[in-house]
Amino acid sequence: MTYCVGLWLKDGIVLLADTRTSAGADNVSMFSKMHTYHMEDERFIALMTAGNLGVSQAVVNLLHEGIRTHERVETLYTVPTMFRAAQLVGEAVRIVFETDGKTLQAQNVPFDVSILVAGEIKGRSTRMFLVYSAGNFIEATPDTPYLQLGEHKYGKPILDRVLEYTTDLMDGVKLVLISMDSTLRSNLTVGMPVDLLVYRKGALAPAVKRRITEDDPYFRMIRDRWGEALRDAYRAIPVPPW
Amino acid sequence: MTYCVGLWLKDGIVLLADTRTSAGADNVSMFSKMHTYHMEDERFIALMTAGNLGVSQAVVNLLHEGIRTHERVETLYTVPTMFRAAQLVGEAVRIVFETDGKTLQAQNVPFDVSILVAGEIKGRSTRMFLVYSAGNFIEATPDTPYLQLGEHKYGKPILDRVLEYTTDLMDGVKLVLISMDSTLRSNLTVGMPVDLLVYRKGALAPAVKRRITEDDPYFRMIRDRWGEALRDAYRAIPVPPW
Repeated sequence: MTYCVGLWLKDGIVLLADTRTSAGADNVSMFSKMHTYHMEDERFIALMTAGNLGVSQAVVNLLHEGIRTHERVETLYTVPTMFRAAQLVGEAVRIVFETDGKTLQAQNVPFDVSILVAGEIKGRSTRMFLVYSAGNFIEATPDTPYLQLGEHKYGKPILDRVLEYTTDLMDGVKLVLISMDSTLRSNLTVGMPVDLLVYRKGALAPAVKRRITEDDPYFRMIRDRWGEALRDAYRAIPVPPW
Repeated sequence: MTYCVGLWLKDGIVLLADTRTSAGADNVSMFSKMHTYHMEDERFIALMTAGNLGVSQAVVNLLHEGIRTHERVETLYTVPTMFRAAQLVGEAVRIVFETDGKTLQAQNVPFDVSILVAGEIKGRSTRMFLVYSAGNFIEATPDTPYLQLGEHKYGKPILDRVLEYTTDLMDGVKLVLISMDSTLRSNLTVGMPVDLLVYRKGALAPAVKRRITEDDPYFRMIRDRWGEALRDAYRAIPVPPW
């Protein structure tokens, strides 16, 4: 299982992905689920992937090689817009489905992949999309300024209660770390370390790109303080009058 | 969908169940999922049910009529122990599976039911069990002093972080209401009103049995204060040093 979360905020984007892949509880390994495509002062695009690792790696490799469309080969380094980036990722998903889908189906393995595509291309707006297994996609909006992949339920309540489009980027970092911590505690197939990326609108380069390990002092502090804060908060609520 | 949660604490039991049943988003109705069996100064047993409503109602009706075992008819009013109560509920589940399971299967409807059984019989300890669709069951222990039915993920992080076996009963009430509120916000097929039950060890009668509606002032206060408290808590965490 995987947990990835992306915030699409007034000032930019915050992405966080875990790194655990598992094919059964006794077959666990670590793979980065975050991929970035950067041309200085021209574009910065990031992907996060969830689902069957064979499928998501095939999609990423295909995007790396480029996809032939209308007599030219497109990659995430050549697409003119973020909308086209999401379309290209969707096309890669469909190509992998055509190649591998039938055999997977015959072996009762669901064709399961979802990909978050976020970033900015010079002169255009910052956008964030979620591409489904069918290659179609949705986009984050001010009403729902976050998108999640994989094991999303444990980490959702904190986002639903607190996050807004106008939330500050560094507050967003705290919120995704809290959301990830809730998920890590409840689902063993989501695991440390986690990959964090912060992108400030217009920068065309990441503000923070960091692998956070189990003993990162900031993450440990959040884990401890958050538990305490919840304990204090519920104790401060008066007992029911009945 | 359903969300029910039971706390099995040092001082007693707290149970909370929503009341929504849905067969599709356009076929929604209200059913109590909590049933109590009370003989003054002798026993107090409560059930909460989740899963297919046809199955769970059949189980409850069967328990009401009594189940013939070893030449006598047993009900939750006659079982000598809480362990036997859980067994009897499991037997009722298996009888319904024998009667209805094959046809449900033929129509691709999963035989899906889970039942929380909690209470005390005079002179014996207070216990809480979770009976599965197969009629077998597990019991809450000081290590894991709560059990959940149905849509359990949204409401789990708060319990995992804060709840302990030694948590005070009225603090337990706050926690199950917070846990329910997280679930109500995230899953529309879990709905108000909710049924709350508080049982203090040795009382052989409920301390609180109350239907909490949308406009209950205490529940509204919890909803508001909890959101605020989370907002204050995450704001109080310092921003990352990187």
